[in-house]
Amino acid sequence: MAVRADRLVRETGHIAYFRKAGRPGRARTIVEGMLRAGAVEIAMEYPVTIEIPFDDPEYAARLSRFYAEASAKLRRRAEAGADVVVLCEGDPFFYGSFMHLHARLKEHVSVEVVPAITGISAAWTATGIPVTWGDDVLCVLTGTMREAELARRMGDADAIVVMKVGRNLPKVRAALATAGKLERAWLVECASLPDERVIPLAEVEECSAPYFSVIVVHGQGRRP
Amino acid sequence: MAVRADRLVRETGHIAYFRKAGRPGRARTIVEGMLRAGAVEIAMEYPVTIEIPFDDPEYAARLSRFYAEASAKLRRRAEAGADVVVLCEGDPFFYGSFMHLHARLKEHVSVEVVPAITGISAAWTATGIPVTWGDDVLCVLTGTMREAELARRMGDADAIVVMKVGRNLPKVRAALATAGKLERAWLVECASLPDERVIPLAEVEECSAPYFSVIVVHGQGRRP
Repeated sequence: MAVRADRLVRETGHIAYFRKAGRPGRARTIVEGMLRAGAVEIAMEYPVTIEIPFDDPEYAARLSRFYAEASAKLRRRAEAGADVVVLCEGDPFFYGSFMHLHARLKEHVSVEVVPAITGISAAWTATGIPVTWGDDVLCVLTGTMREAELARRMGDADAIVVMKVGRNLPKVRAALATAGKLERAWLVECASLPDERVIPLAEVEECSAPYFSVIVVHGQGRRP
Repeated sequence: MAVRADRLVRETGHIAYFRKAGRPGRARTIVEGMLRAGAVEIAMEYPVTIEIPFDDPEYAARLSRFYAEASAKLRRRAEAGADVVVLCEGDPFFYGSFMHLHARLKEHVSVEVVPAITGISAAWTATGIPVTWGDDVLCVLTGTMREAELARRMGDADAIVVMKVGRNLPKVRAALATAGKLERAWLVECASLPDERVIPLAEVEECSAPYFSVIVVHGQGRRP
């Protein structure tokens, strides 16, 4: 966590975070023991995570309502004078749920974003191998893309990171094999968390990985 | 800075950092006031930065000698029992000079890497606009690449970050124009530092930018 984020979390009177309904929430768990006594907690519970395919119009409609309601709640607090801290895992502007609140709030209230360590930095650090050297091209892909498109882009990059692996693991693996890069790929589960696991992808036998898994192929660029 | 890095910097008895000869050093400047009284400082001064083209064999040879000597010095300290903290700007494993020490030290002494906020996170945060949404493909390029190659890759990505801009600014700008993305590009100089500057690239009149400049083109992906 950034020093600035640490200070904001410890000082705030209002803290908001996303979580899956019925769970304590990963972000909330990370700040356990850091909050001020009496800090008001605002849990924003996703109405759906992976129960509906992300390309189903119902998925977008339900999430859209959820983000509108959550934003309205935060806006009311802010307009009543509260400084609300919203927790994000990873960098808020890099594939973050917070972006959907930011888009709805920024015209109405003052929103300040604290840059953070991305989950992909935690993932390549966990492998113990630098990810990009010299003029390496790094391509960040998502496991939700079509296999042929993944394979084409994997073949065209020096270093590769694949986010949103989860149940897309077999497809991502096949695409890496097509691109001739499976032997250089690592699967990193839950980077920087107690259940972190780092394993060569070619040795992975499971057909899915936790949602917060990242696949890393390291660049091989110029090094004096 | 990460909380963990902050603690290591404040507690260490030996701190090492890169700098251009004759300068105080950006990394060292950032930790001013944080070091323990009596902490041993190890300044590692680059023998060359931009005076020789990076593809000249002399450039590689001089840097290789430099990294070998610096690594040997750190190794001697470590083998004598010191815990040496090496400062890095940005994430150590993402295009970092530290990687050249790590490659020479990792077989001999224990090296622990602390993941960090990359300069590109600081850059897109400074623009106030999220960089990747939904299934956006992010491509990280370096301004040192050939113009046609830059343009081809820029045309194929949803979100783009260009590092190592400096004197490559006109080439990068031309490549973005060819790819039809100049109007969406931002130049961010010295992100998160006091002299930070954020400006639409199309409005930039200079022919070069500080070395620590980043160009950002934001993705336009799916958003509920």
